[in-house]
Amino acid sequence: MPYVTVKMLPGRTVEQKRALIEKVTDAVSETTNAPKENITVFIEEMDATHYGQAGVMHADKK
Amino acid sequence: MPYVTVKMLPGRTVEQKRALIEKVTDAVSETTNAPKENITVFIEEMDATHYGQAGVMHADKK
Amino acid sequence: MPYVTVKMLPGRTVEQKRALIEKVTDAVSETTNAPKENITVFIEEMDATHYGQAGVMHADKK
Amino acid sequence: MPYVTVKMLPGRTVEQKRALIEKVTDAVSETTNAPKENITVFIEEMDATHYGQAGVMHADKK
Amino acid sequence: MPYVTVKMLPGRTVEQKRALIEKVTDAVSETTNAPKENITVFIEEMDATHYGQAGVMHADKK
Amino acid sequence: MPYVTVKMLPGRTVEQKRALIEKVTDAVSETTNAPKENITVFIEEMDATHYGQAGVMHADKK
Repeated sequence: MPYVTVKMLPGRTVEQKRALIEKVTDAVSETTNAPKENITVFIEEMDATHYGQAGVMHADKK
Repeated sequence: MPYVTVKMLPGRTVEQKRALIEKVTDAVSETTNAPKENITVFIEEMDATHYGQAGVMHADKK
Repeated sequence: MPYVTVKMLPGRTVEQKRALIEKVTDAVSETTNAPKENITVFIEEMDATHYGQAGVMHADKK
Repeated sequence: MPYVTVKMLPGRTVEQKRALIEKVTDAVSETTNAPKENITVFIEEMDATHYGQAGVMHADKK
Repeated sequence: MPYVTVKMLPGRTVEQKRALIEKVTDAVSETTNAPKENITVFIEEMDATHYGQAGVMHADKK
Repeated sequence: MPYVTVKMLPGRTVEQKRALIEKVTDAVSETTNAPKENITVFIEEMDATHYGQAGVMHADKK
């Protein structure tokens, strides 16, 4: 605890995801005093046809 | 805000998903007075082997 | 199925939530052809100190 | 109701998932008195590059 | 891993929740071969005005 | 996008939550190249009776 879920579009490299897990864990530990070994990070990717803002599908914005 | 997540089985077309994003945004804006441009919609698809009701896997019902 | 979760700040009345459940169900049924009786809606409220955009807590924007 | 989501790494067979849905439904019904026919189970699989503990990506632990 | 979230209406006792955590953990371990010490269970309660089926708010069904 | 949800036990101050939103946004922006103004953070608090590991309710560990 805490448990962090990052929901984003696809396209990041494994290296970026590795850094994301590390830096988000650091940020959470630094600000909540939770030990890093207790922090879990999940990444969830969503397709551009599965995401919309203001009623418009993200895939249609390109 | 608000943020809407629609979890469903696969099988809808991109056109259906486009309409889903639009109409759900309309419905949320109309009933909560949130401006449409502030509303976000996510669609999450689940496989029929990843969904069960009354203890029975959905894939086994076909 | 489908299952819809609406995440928003507090402040809406029970009447607004009642209408939200009804109209979102209509919108999902109309666009996905799912029978209304199969559609479930969840509402999740988040405090203004539990929500931030661009690194700024929503409660601080007032 | 209740609605149960099981989030895990890939690798289980359909048979294991079938048993998971059945046994989790039994456990929830037994302890909450909810009728089995009202209980829904979702399974969500996450890639080993989408999961980290203590700042380390799960895929890097192998 | 796995991580289990049980979403339900309020009204269960702490004893029922204690048993729910224990029995769900047993069921997940038994069917997925995940060691019990690796299994996490979250309970999320939702108000009857925050839950609707077939377009009808649960609180209105009483 | 991205959207980050931090799930944790209660007990942090508003100042800690303010810093959590800021630092997590920085970490996500730095590692995914997403502009800060596009990043959303949600905090979800769970009661100690709504959280269990290895089959044991967190509230019982004290």
